[in-house]
Amino acid sequence: MEQQERQLAGTLRRDEIGKKVCLKGWVQKRRDLGGLIFIDFRDRSGLVQIVFNPAISEQALEIAESVRNEYVLEVCGQVVERSTDTINPKMATGEVEVVVDFVSILNEAKNPPFSVFDDKEISEELRLKYRYLDLRRESMQQTFRMRHQATQVIRQFLNEEEYLEMETPMLTKSTPEGARDYLVPSRVHPGHFYALPQSPQLFKQLIMVSGFERYFQFARCFRDEDLRADRQPEFTQIDIETSFMSSDEIMAMTERMMQKLMKEVKGIEITSPIPRMRYEEAMERYGSDKPDTRFDMELVDVSELVKTSNFKVFESTVNTGGKVSAINVKGQAANYSRKDIDKLTDFVKIYGAKGLAWLKIEDNAFKGPIAKFFSEEEQASMMKVLQANENDLLLFVADAKSIVYDSLGALRMKLAKELHLIDESQFNFLWVTDWPLLEYDENAGRYTAAHHPFTMPSDEDLDKLDTHPEQVKAQAYDLVLNGYELGGGSLRIYKKDIQDKMFKVLGFSEEEAWEQFSFLLQALEYGTPPHGGIALGFDRMVMLLAGKTNLRDTILFPKTASASDLLTEAPGSVGQTQLDELHLSLQQKAIDETSK
Amino acid sequence: MEQQERQLAGTLRRDEIGKKVCLKGWVQKRRDLGGLIFIDFRDRSGLVQIVFNPAISEQALEIAESVRNEYVLEVCGQVVERSTDTINPKMATGEVEVVVDFVSILNEAKNPPFSVFDDKEISEELRLKYRYLDLRRESMQQTFRMRHQATQVIRQFLNEEEYLEMETPMLTKSTPEGARDYLVPSRVHPGHFYALPQSPQLFKQLIMVSGFERYFQFARCFRDEDLRADRQPEFTQIDIETSFMSSDEIMAMTERMMQKLMKEVKGIEITSPIPRMRYEEAMERYGSDKPDTRFDMELVDVSELVKTSNFKVFESTVNTGGKVSAINVKGQAANYSRKDIDKLTDFVKIYGAKGLAWLKIEDNAFKGPIAKFFSEEEQASMMKVLQANENDLLLFVADAKSIVYDSLGALRMKLAKELHLIDESQFNFLWVTDWPLLEYDENAGRYTAAHHPFTMPSDEDLDKLDTHPEQVKAQAYDLVLNGYELGGGSLRIYKKDIQDKMFKVLGFSEEEAWEQFSFLLQALEYGTPPHGGIALGFDRMVMLLAGKTNLRDTILFPKTASASDLLTEAPGSVGQTQLDELHLSLQQKAIDETSK
Repeated sequence: MEQQERQLAGTLRRDEIGKKVCLKGWVQKRRDLGGLIFIDFRDRSGLVQIVFNPAISEQALEIAESVRNEYVLEVCGQVVERSTDTINPKMATGEVEVVVDFVSILNEAKNPPFSVFDDKEISEELRLKYRYLDLRRESMQQTFRMRHQATQVIRQFLNEEEYLEMETPMLTKSTPEGARDYLVPSRVHPGHFYALPQSPQLFKQLIMVSGFERYFQFARCFRDEDLRADRQPEFTQIDIETSFMSSDEIMAMTERMMQKLMKEVKGIEITSPIPRMRYEEAMERYGSDKPDTRFDMELVDVSELVKTSNFKVFESTVNTGGKVSAINVKGQAANYSRKDIDKLTDFVKIYGAKGLAWLKIEDNAFKGPIAKFFSEEEQASMMKVLQANENDLLLFVADAKSIVYDSLGALRMKLAKELHLIDESQFNFLWVTDWPLLEYDENAGRYTAAHHPFTMPSDEDLDKLDTHPEQVKAQAYDLVLNGYELGGGSLRIYKKDIQDKMFKVLGFSEEEAWEQFSFLLQALEYGTPPHGGIALGFDRMVMLLAGKTNLRDTILFPKTASASDLLTEAPGSVGQTQLDELHLSLQQKAIDETSK
Repeated sequence: MEQQERQLAGTLRRDEIGKKVCLKGWVQKRRDLGGLIFIDFRDRSGLVQIVFNPAISEQALEIAESVRNEYVLEVCGQVVERSTDTINPKMATGEVEVVVDFVSILNEAKNPPFSVFDDKEISEELRLKYRYLDLRRESMQQTFRMRHQATQVIRQFLNEEEYLEMETPMLTKSTPEGARDYLVPSRVHPGHFYALPQSPQLFKQLIMVSGFERYFQFARCFRDEDLRADRQPEFTQIDIETSFMSSDEIMAMTERMMQKLMKEVKGIEITSPIPRMRYEEAMERYGSDKPDTRFDMELVDVSELVKTSNFKVFESTVNTGGKVSAINVKGQAANYSRKDIDKLTDFVKIYGAKGLAWLKIEDNAFKGPIAKFFSEEEQASMMKVLQANENDLLLFVADAKSIVYDSLGALRMKLAKELHLIDESQFNFLWVTDWPLLEYDENAGRYTAAHHPFTMPSDEDLDKLDTHPEQVKAQAYDLVLNGYELGGGSLRIYKKDIQDKMFKVLGFSEEEAWEQFSFLLQALEYGTPPHGGIALGFDRMVMLLAGKTNLRDTILFPKTASASDLLTEAPGSVGQTQLDELHLSLQQKAIDETSK
């Protein structure tokens, strides 16, 4: 066996011509041609072509004949210049090849269930089952190299800004409210359970009480909820908390971090300061609390204009407390048939809208079944506020405010994608601020925290917490990128009396609050500094940086929508002994499921 | 409210004299003296003295009068020189003080249950219950700053050596063998459970199969076992895996990492290369597989010398397959009475030894009840091999090999501590190599893996795997520091046929092996590169760097020996609804425990 130092395949260039090298890696593709064997040889650095020539080594060629795709080889040979006609400009190493005089098969490989170098669509089930092969593909390798790089850049930044990286527990307290907690039965304490953290929220607040002042962590978090395409039962968030900083200072720090990240990972300078928008404005203009600002087509409130119109649907909606908003689909009137618009109507109905009214602009006037309800004047003023011109398509929803926002906001996104209005190369960051502190839960008949119960009300609204809780704004801020919520944060309640009041507004009795959060309430009494922070979804951040659309492409070993790991077949059934040790029994449904 | 930029208390020095500063932090200690109030004022950077003087601000003084220890304040004032007689050379800021003209109470504090600045012994229970106060103490602050620094140094090193930081799942597969697994019931799959990882072993091997070649992670691991003082149910390991490297290369990389760490965190240059010792030698010379080499008092095998002696206990032990070893407690004969030695005898009995024989050297000859059994010649040769001189105390154990090692090894450590033989400033690293691959489990009547079932046998022993499994050495290495196992690693099995054989030796049927490890066995068939790695216990590493003796002092929010979190009171009971969602019932014992 040769003992020469290993070199990386993807690094070989012209200036290595003549050099003897040894490589270790995988057979990506083998081609037999005119008595020679050519192999695209791959390692973590990339590809190089290696050649087996009987004139150089009969023995090596013989071995190469037995070699198939994904075999692991050690090869040694000379770097030679390729002839002009065989230079491959698509490969970084395309000007050279290695003529092999020694080869050793380090491991064999069966024919893989899918090729690791084609860009063919492969079923996601197969990809997840053979994740270790899926991950060999170039685009996956790139994504996880980028993820690593992003990790290091962010850590370096936070380290330089004197944030301490600290680890909080995974085996934490389960709370009666924690409907989405993953529970972990304790063997030592029968009938007792830990919970996996949905976030290290309370621990990071305690770290502030401890006086460390600046904390961060790449925190694994867990949420046992019905999964959507962009959710995973375990996910990673960049968790940050600081003492003695204003929300402006926390936002500014986050901006510096994102600037550095975008610069170092994507080579992109982002606009600074990142624009800010109040929650109310975001809803009014984009029908979304995480607006995609890479394109316009904003929602326009026409309630005032239509409340005296002859179109009864609009008129009565406005006069019974609802509103009418519209979007202007520029220059698309001719391209949307009635049938097309019917489909859009079906779409907005998903969001609770009763219907979708439409108008086209033809010869500088409204056209369409409802055009007749609007006077020439009304038409003129509506065209003005909607900046409508010839061949524009106007789409209206008249409904309760929240339905108008949800449906038109979603329609806006759908149309932008259909019409390719989005410049995919852009990275539009946006802060959404001035969030409501509370939401009214109709089912429960009480208020719930819009963010979490530890969010600080805005100073000027503090008095309204008892009297008009629905009007209280939170000192909270979300960072939005291209229509995705990257993360959010807030100042936290650091005074015991405000926290008590908050729990009361949320309908907790004193006993309930104490039972669940005694340690926090106690900590607030021993010199808690003003503090706040932010948590950013790291998986999603990587997804957006890598230009992917599926979170599963940014998590090394992800789970399916039903929270299964197709590779290891988790979760699995366990033995009775293990259950007995935990003093647990399966209920009938569980017995049925496991005996299937 | 003043709007000046905040400065850090602990950074103020002579050259800031005359400057106006604003500080935010905690009242560490207040003293009233001659109409003035002096406060040791603390923030994350340290302490500075602040002074309230009625001549400067009556109002500030008045507020200061209401202030107690651990109040959170914002203060502004002028940095002034202390008079020569009040300079405090023990404080970094001891030459200056801040004369306050503005103060605002940011938060109040009750009298804490223990002082955060005394070095008084506080009961651990109280410390854990009020962890957020415990963590304010200077030595805790230092430990976690050091932990942060160690994290960054190691990450930077591994990043530079092209290791990729990657995250493996926490919700993994439970295996029938996983007696110490923490289980997590699945809501979506009734009766099915995830397991929290005891280590990311198989995932990091799959990362190698994926072709990433170099991986690391600060991995949270979990082990549900009966806890000892130096164990925690969740702990952090620096998890590293590489492809195409020899064990020498992996050890060399680890050494570079430890060198950099010791240099940057402790300012210490460590010996390189780190000495290596075979497992057998470590046991023979130190009675331990993790020898503390900061002192000598090595075990000496005297079996050959005593097997013909008249002392029947020694003679028969050797002639029935046992061995006799001794340690020489230099110069301590006069200091150990019979009673003292009786205590040592009780001590070795804990480790299964039947007794402890002893001899003292007086007038260049053996003294003691068994001295008479040894001829002058025998005495001379034993004194020679034991390098025994006047007033030395020789302690012997005659027993089965493993008992001799365990008992004398433990006795050696006990005596070294009693006699202060250990230079606590030293950091002695050691590699222990050539581990046995298998252990014979008398109870189960079969072999078990000494490390784990994926460890590569040494190349030369490969043939013996079927015939003499007990003789097979592993390609494994442990890193030892000052008598603690810092971590261990190995080359892994990367060929399917060897892995099959290994499972067979361990008593797995083909079905059992497949059921538990199908994904690994399958992966081995698709071009798995030769690979290996190491895992280092990070909590323990920090403990040793910080000169602590308790793991709980290096974990931010640790659990007690019964795996409870005294701060949050985890684990706790959960509601019936939550159990029903998981389709689980409590067995009677659990019901009893939770209704207590």
